[in-house]
Amino acid sequence: MLKGYQSWEFTNRPVIIGTATVVGPDEGSGPLGDQFDIVHADSLVGQDSWEKAEKRLLEEAAKLAIENAGTTKDHIQFYVGGDLLNQIISNSFAVRTMQIPYLGIFGACSTSMEGLAIASMIVDSGFGHRVMAGTCSHNSTAEKQFRYPTEYGSQKPPTAQYTVTGAAAAVVAKEGKGPVVTGATIGRVIDMGIKDPFNMGAAMAPAAVDTMQSHFRDFGREPGYYDLIVTGDLASVGYQIACDLLEKHNIPIHQTNYYDCGLMIYDLEKQDVQAGGSGCGCSATVTYGHILKRMSKGELKRVLVVATGALLSPLSFQQGESIPCIAHAVAIESEGTK
Amino acid sequence: MLKGYQSWEFTNRPVIIGTATVVGPDEGSGPLGDQFDIVHADSLVGQDSWEKAEKRLLEEAAKLAIENAGTTKDHIQFYVGGDLLNQIISNSFAVRTMQIPYLGIFGACSTSMEGLAIASMIVDSGFGHRVMAGTCSHNSTAEKQFRYPTEYGSQKPPTAQYTVTGAAAAVVAKEGKGPVVTGATIGRVIDMGIKDPFNMGAAMAPAAVDTMQSHFRDFGREPGYYDLIVTGDLASVGYQIACDLLEKHNIPIHQTNYYDCGLMIYDLEKQDVQAGGSGCGCSATVTYGHILKRMSKGELKRVLVVATGALLSPLSFQQGESIPCIAHAVAIESEGTK
Repeated sequence: MLKGYQSWEFTNRPVIIGTATVVGPDEGSGPLGDQFDIVHADSLVGQDSWEKAEKRLLEEAAKLAIENAGTTKDHIQFYVGGDLLNQIISNSFAVRTMQIPYLGIFGACSTSMEGLAIASMIVDSGFGHRVMAGTCSHNSTAEKQFRYPTEYGSQKPPTAQYTVTGAAAAVVAKEGKGPVVTGATIGRVIDMGIKDPFNMGAAMAPAAVDTMQSHFRDFGREPGYYDLIVTGDLASVGYQIACDLLEKHNIPIHQTNYYDCGLMIYDLEKQDVQAGGSGCGCSATVTYGHILKRMSKGELKRVLVVATGALLSPLSFQQGESIPCIAHAVAIESEGTK
Repeated sequence: MLKGYQSWEFTNRPVIIGTATVVGPDEGSGPLGDQFDIVHADSLVGQDSWEKAEKRLLEEAAKLAIENAGTTKDHIQFYVGGDLLNQIISNSFAVRTMQIPYLGIFGACSTSMEGLAIASMIVDSGFGHRVMAGTCSHNSTAEKQFRYPTEYGSQKPPTAQYTVTGAAAAVVAKEGKGPVVTGATIGRVIDMGIKDPFNMGAAMAPAAVDTMQSHFRDFGREPGYYDLIVTGDLASVGYQIACDLLEKHNIPIHQTNYYDCGLMIYDLEKQDVQAGGSGCGCSATVTYGHILKRMSKGELKRVLVVATGALLSPLSFQQGESIPCIAHAVAIESEGTK
């Protein structure tokens, strides 16, 4: 049901009964490398284009998530997903393989939690018994589409981010064993006038803080309710700005552990990833890989994932527009068997 | 609640309390020209780029839909929308102006009914009291992005379609006066191997028929339940294929009036639109403009809108991929004041 102004409370507590994460070599050699289900040594994944590789990652993640959920694709009513590529082709082509009724979505890198929120709403309200949410990104498809040809080897400023090569999927069900999705907050578009696509963390930080603030207001909670709050992919520059903004808005973020998936997936000292990770695959693989594993071990009980997205296109940038940003938050809690 | 395999039944019968349609000159001079709320004589709408014009159309439609619904934007919890442009910038930038929490979606031209279905589910299940669905397309932005530079004046085969310049929005509410949304069927991706982007009607027709068939199966209905069934934008080639496929699958489509929005919005004899209209704006403006007006006059009681979408990108075409297609159906029924 609607909670407050822009949040959803899932009173039937839909369960994440299975997830899967598939990543590329850079993510595999990062600090969370052993937490992902499949690590590919070859970022082309045996395909003949980066786009086909990205699609393949998602196909693998979806297939494995269904297996891990102990079900079959015929028992999943809907798939909700999207990605960064023009016309979200990675998802549409992967769903062609899956043959599950499909709701395409787009929230740039916030797609991960937009999908989990919609899937959870569908299950919570009885519009589906089992719904899968998925997303993916690939460093080379994103570079090619949003920046320069991959062969060009352009230099980047230290504020730039490194798009995660990875896909992740989660099966949400009415009943089963796993962590439960208890709430979500749908973000507004926030645009502080930043125009530099090499500084998206800074552009997205105010959207992340706006959604967090709305979440705490709508649920009447403080940050301390959660053991861990992560933003999606603000990386080092955006994370620092978010910390400053949270303090400025008197949000007692010190009550909890607050970190950013873009800082968790890579070792910024050792890996050449500028300010840190980004892409739909960033928050998705960190959440479904690392964070849910920590929850299943009992190390974390309540987590808020605030996935952030920069809703620009190369064309909007070329036309001199600033970067509209958004963040969607999903609350996941441990509950064991239901 | 879930109905059958891939459909939603809206038992609380959410009401479309207000809509608005805004179109360009070609749509204004077509057979439905007097049914749209705003007709622009200038397809640039006073802006300095086609993209800004498309965004402007949507801003106008959203603003007017809210007015027509007798409410204000502060009383609308969520906006659900998308469009054909890369990273759905028309919607994301229009929502920046609206400042309503935002779920970005993408289903190519099926986005219109994907949005209405999701908005209706949110309202039906109590996850929002008032939710707006919107979409838009612009002939020149689509030409530029999917085909050739607009200045190039390339010739087209007669199977090609003409992207509608238009935007439409609908406010769905728990209570109020207007037609009610009673059900939806979410489509699967269907790809019959067609690779020609100048023949998208043929590519999309099997998806439309698949969704219709699923809809009749899930609801235990025959086509005769509806006074009118329209597909989104199959245009003349796709419409004929759909008619043939419906007959082949023994679906008694003769029980009802079946037509296609892409054939309704233009006069194919007099206007130079090849096989007919397409684009997210096509089914959206025809449904929210023309069809709902006929419902309010009592000429139609039950309508099924089967919006079709071709989920290709220029890049997937260049890489030799065929065109994955989808269709989402929404049932709208007259019910007067609730």
